[in-house]
Amino acid sequence: MNIRHMLKLYVIPDRQIGAPRTLLEQTEEVLKGGATVIQLRDKQSGGRELLETALAMKRLCYDYNVPLIINDRLDVALAAQADGVHLGQKDLPLEAVRPFLPRGFIVGVSAHTVDQARIALKSGASYIGIGAAFPTGSKEDAHVVGLSRIREIMEAVPIPAVAIGGINEENVAEAMKTGVNGVAVISAIVGAPHIKKAARHFLSLIS
Amino acid sequence: MNIRHMLKLYVIPDRQIGAPRTLLEQTEEVLKGGATVIQLRDKQSGGRELLETALAMKRLCYDYNVPLIINDRLDVALAAQADGVHLGQKDLPLEAVRPFLPRGFIVGVSAHTVDQARIALKSGASYIGIGAAFPTGSKEDAHVVGLSRIREIMEAVPIPAVAIGGINEENVAEAMKTGVNGVAVISAIVGAPHIKKAARHFLSLIS
Ligand code: NI
Repeated sequence: MNIRHMLKLYVIPDRQIGAPRTLLEQTEEVLKGGATVIQLRDKQSGGRELLETALAMKRLCYDYNVPLIINDRLDVALAAQADGVHLGQKDLPLEAVRPFLPRGFIVGVSAHTVDQARIALKSGASYIGIGAAFPTGSKEDAHVVGLSRIREIMEAVPIPAVAIGGINEENVAEAMKTGVNGVAVISAIVGAPHIKKAARHFLSLIS
Repeated sequence: MNIRHMLKLYVIPDRQIGAPRTLLEQTEEVLKGGATVIQLRDKQSGGRELLETALAMKRLCYDYNVPLIINDRLDVALAAQADGVHLGQKDLPLEAVRPFLPRGFIVGVSAHTVDQARIALKSGASYIGIGAAFPTGSKEDAHVVGLSRIREIMEAVPIPAVAIGGINEENVAEAMKTGVNGVAVISAIVGAPHIKKAARHFLSLIS
């Protein structure tokens, strides 16, 4: 699993933003569009429903040889035999869950500062998500760190990374210039009228 | 660990109901009052905060030789080295998380019907929580199953059990007559003016 290549087009389906398409429909479309990794993030659903969704998404992703990462809920990730987990700064710390990660499990961590990125690297994170790059419609509590912070982190810490937050077709090229290995996108892809087309277009802008 | 004895006085501290006392303060008071098992249930907090709370509650519980059970979040339970997890009907199914439970881990499951209780027993649950026994102030979505259902389950399925939901000093004796091994209490203890005193009183009513 080449993490840097995996991070190229990181898509996070969203119930509200992608509606009326279901998480599974959004997933299938972005996979057809060339997404290189998918994250299941759902703060509303209980564990049982999350597991069902994760299992169904895993089946889809597996057919495209694309990893599925679960946000926050390591227990769901383990039960679903997902490929990894992504931990935000308010989620369980990586050091606390290290003993429970299966061999080869991908573990991403959110970092907003050089310090957080260093800690992630030291704790053995597979990659970091740095954001928000730009004002975002997806995450109410995401504060903007901006491109220069992202560049600062990329220059200071040698760890695979995606930029996340408000990435769209107009700013993706700028975002890639910071040195990140890819971009994590929500609204600009799963909120688009033609999801597969939007994903394909993004891929061409990144490559 | 004798599960049946452990279930005698099962207390679940609550941020809102127990306010202005913190979860930790509530925990200390109920431990002094003789609670035999504590559950940390908190649907608001993120994983990191939950872990901090769980670790602090574990330290307190350990001093009293009382087990700490975490509601729903198996990942937090593992990271905190808690004594067990409690899974509701909307949480991860026991069969899905079985491979990840450490040796000796306590696993409780919520059951509302004889069928659910049988499934719990077959899946290897340590105990079941049956409720709601009476209308409850704690859980908005808890439907009342009543004492006769609890008795029905106790007669049909040989598994350790607690009755939960609306248990107070007036009805605890009736609740115990259903054959359960103990009662899980929230409002009547952590919502009381003197938590330690309320717990002690309950213990005397159960014994
Ligand atoms: Ni375009």
